[in-house]
Amino acid sequence: MGNDSRLTDWERRAEVPLGVASLLFLTSYAVRVLGHDLPEAVRDTALALTCASWALFLIDYGVRWRLSGLGPGFVSRRWLDTVVVLLPLLRPVQIVKVYDAVQRRHGHPRLSLHARVIVYAGLSVALLGFAGALAVYHQEYAAPHATIRTFGDSVWWTCATLATVGYGDVAPVTPAGRVIAVGLMGCGLALLGAVTGSFSAWLLQVFSREDGEGPPAS
Amino acid sequence: MGNDSRLTDWERRAEVPLGVASLLFLTSYAVRVLGHDLPEAVRDTALALTCASWALFLIDYGVRWRLSGLGPGFVSRRWLDTVVVLLPLLRPVQIVKVYDAVQRRHGHPRLSLHARVIVYAGLSVALLGFAGALAVYHQEYAAPHATIRTFGDSVWWTCATLATVGYGDVAPVTPAGRVIAVGLMGCGLALLGAVTGSFSAWLLQVFSREDGEGPPAS
Amino acid sequence: MGNDSRLTDWERRAEVPLGVASLLFLTSYAVRVLGHDLPEAVRDTALALTCASWALFLIDYGVRWRLSGLGPGFVSRRWLDTVVVLLPLLRPVQIVKVYDAVQRRHGHPRLSLHARVIVYAGLSVALLGFAGALAVYHQEYAAPHATIRTFGDSVWWTCATLATVGYGDVAPVTPAGRVIAVGLMGCGLALLGAVTGSFSAWLLQVFSREDGEGPPAS
Amino acid sequence: MGNDSRLTDWERRAEVPLGVASLLFLTSYAVRVLGHDLPEAVRDTALALTCASWALFLIDYGVRWRLSGLGPGFVSRRWLDTVVVLLPLLRPVQIVKVYDAVQRRHGHPRLSLHARVIVYAGLSVALLGFAGALAVYHQEYAAPHATIRTFGDSVWWTCATLATVGYGDVAPVTPAGRVIAVGLMGCGLALLGAVTGSFSAWLLQVFSREDGEGPPAS
Repeated sequence: MGNDSRLTDWERRAEVPLGVASLLFLTSYAVRVLGHDLPEAVRDTALALTCASWALFLIDYGVRWRLSGLGPGFVSRRWLDTVVVLLPLLRPVQIVKVYDAVQRRHGHPRLSLHARVIVYAGLSVALLGFAGALAVYHQEYAAPHATIRTFGDSVWWTCATLATVGYGDVAPVTPAGRVIAVGLMGCGLALLGAVTGSFSAWLLQVFSREDGEGPPAS
Repeated sequence: MGNDSRLTDWERRAEVPLGVASLLFLTSYAVRVLGHDLPEAVRDTALALTCASWALFLIDYGVRWRLSGLGPGFVSRRWLDTVVVLLPLLRPVQIVKVYDAVQRRHGHPRLSLHARVIVYAGLSVALLGFAGALAVYHQEYAAPHATIRTFGDSVWWTCATLATVGYGDVAPVTPAGRVIAVGLMGCGLALLGAVTGSFSAWLLQVFSREDGEGPPAS
Repeated sequence: MGNDSRLTDWERRAEVPLGVASLLFLTSYAVRVLGHDLPEAVRDTALALTCASWALFLIDYGVRWRLSGLGPGFVSRRWLDTVVVLLPLLRPVQIVKVYDAVQRRHGHPRLSLHARVIVYAGLSVALLGFAGALAVYHQEYAAPHATIRTFGDSVWWTCATLATVGYGDVAPVTPAGRVIAVGLMGCGLALLGAVTGSFSAWLLQVFSREDGEGPPAS
Repeated sequence: MGNDSRLTDWERRAEVPLGVASLLFLTSYAVRVLGHDLPEAVRDTALALTCASWALFLIDYGVRWRLSGLGPGFVSRRWLDTVVVLLPLLRPVQIVKVYDAVQRRHGHPRLSLHARVIVYAGLSVALLGFAGALAVYHQEYAAPHATIRTFGDSVWWTCATLATVGYGDVAPVTPAGRVIAVGLMGCGLALLGAVTGSFSAWLLQVFSREDGEGPPAS
């Protein structure tokens, strides 16, 4: 129990700093990728900030590993955390948890389940999409025969991918860009599942309510 | 209560005029966008009508804001209305509400929930699709290297987008056209969610009815 | 009641002949469209058979209108029949009903609801897809700048459309071809809804059965 | 009963050897398809191994047919097995069953139903996708005007197909490649159905649990 309470304690305390670090990571990565014309000093600072926030995630991961007392089993039991450390671009998605915690701390009632699913899915997809567009642009813009040449192209391509529309007027051509693209397709599938699933669950709730309203069960 | 009843009163009275204004807005916008060969006077009249109906929506929004007595909170509480005023092309979707009201006023029974979901989704998608096709055509037809050159191309592209098929034989190339396209993709995702969700909810209802029919629960 | 029973009687008797006429319609249309190299006499016979089976559908429609005693209301009450008469390519889908009737007549138990949904959706999509591929090929193969040049291209494009994948390597370019394509996209959306909805309904059934198995409700 | 118990006995014993043969089949097929530069002897060995494992599946099919005592009815009653024998690329999907059996033999509790659906769908799609990418590459890489020229292209195209995104920047051009592609599209539809259906079922379970938690039904 000592380990568990210390782990919970750590996670509660680390919540806000890690949330800030997530935004810092995304912002500095965006500056690094997009700021071709910025002075070299600014770009180097951005790179340093990106690395520093990644280091913070690594430290947090290590501390939680140790506090959990699980040993090597931690990697498989908390596999989502592991993925997030390896692919730090995914980190900002955890800001949704922070937002929810802040709302509750301020005494606001929790959102309804439908609203929460929509907010989670919407924010996650927006953050993942932005990070994915940055990463694909970083891989593609200088590649020979690339069709994704500006960040605008990359955002446009990301939207078409997340909606599973996929025009193909622009598409990644480098192996690294395509690997990121497959990840974004997975997000698109999950988004579709979330939208469709929520709608179907909401409809069923409304149906059962309407059925119940009719003749009272006396 | 005074505010509430006055607001409801206003909304009831404004329903039909605003519905007419919605159709006028869409029609005059279509004339303006599509009528390249019409005399200048007609095109200017169309523009004036578009602006006039937009002004009507703004006035209606202002009146409702005032009657609601919510102050600045109105913007976030009635965010759908706010979006509709900012993007007046979305306005015609509210005609679905008018249709439902007219049906009830004439003593017709309300449609079944399934039928209503299908009618709402179908009409909304048709209106949004038509408005989106107009707007994308307006942005694209004169752009260099554009592939959407006729209104027919634009409608074809809109259908492929709303069905999340996305051939990509024609696709918007201007930033403004692509922003509208992303909105249409969102509509496509929602349409897919509505179709799938309705089907799954209907199947589940049929299943539970068949299960109930079998052995009586005596 | 007299009208109703006579209508039911007619429908029962007309079932098999109309099912045969449906197949004849599809076959002769396929021969007409695909048989560029057949002697003119064969092609003319095919055209005549197509028209004859269409005439049969028209006669059946007229008889049912009259027997129903609904007058003009028949058009809106039986709108699916009306659509089928106007677009005779959709007719073969009704063969599913014939198959189901034959199964029951032979004393076979009806299929389970899941199986029926899958069989309906599968057969309908296969027939509609074949008819759609024929119609699109008919419109496209001789058009300038067409990418659908062989019937194989047309079938390939139809599959990609029905699965909402939409590569866009081949795509219709004529207005008539695109109108048919939009119909096929609608089928694709419905197919997706049927697959997803069945899966979700089946999962929910399995879940509720597993929940019930656990601790007995004693 | 004797037949049934002997069939079950055979299936239990053949489970692990057939699982190994599945992997061998996939591996040797991959070596054969991808190893253009390997010495001819290695490629011939790979081909021999592919044929040998296929022969094993045929033998297993024959034994099960005989033990089932069903006669020709076996083909339709166990149609999935028949499909697997005809299209041996589909065989590795049965490894999911082996994994589940191994887990239970080691005393591990069975996975929850959601986890099992996800594991089944994920593994099946990964195996089918890999096999499909191999088969399409085999058909396409030497075809004139082919856009799928490397195995990387083929994997990229497979991912875009399974997610129903379908960019169309690369697409099969040979008839055989397109037939395999249609099969992969079907997998993509089923995957979408599994993802969406699981999500919707999970949401409905959570909703009904939350509803039950509120006011006790006392």
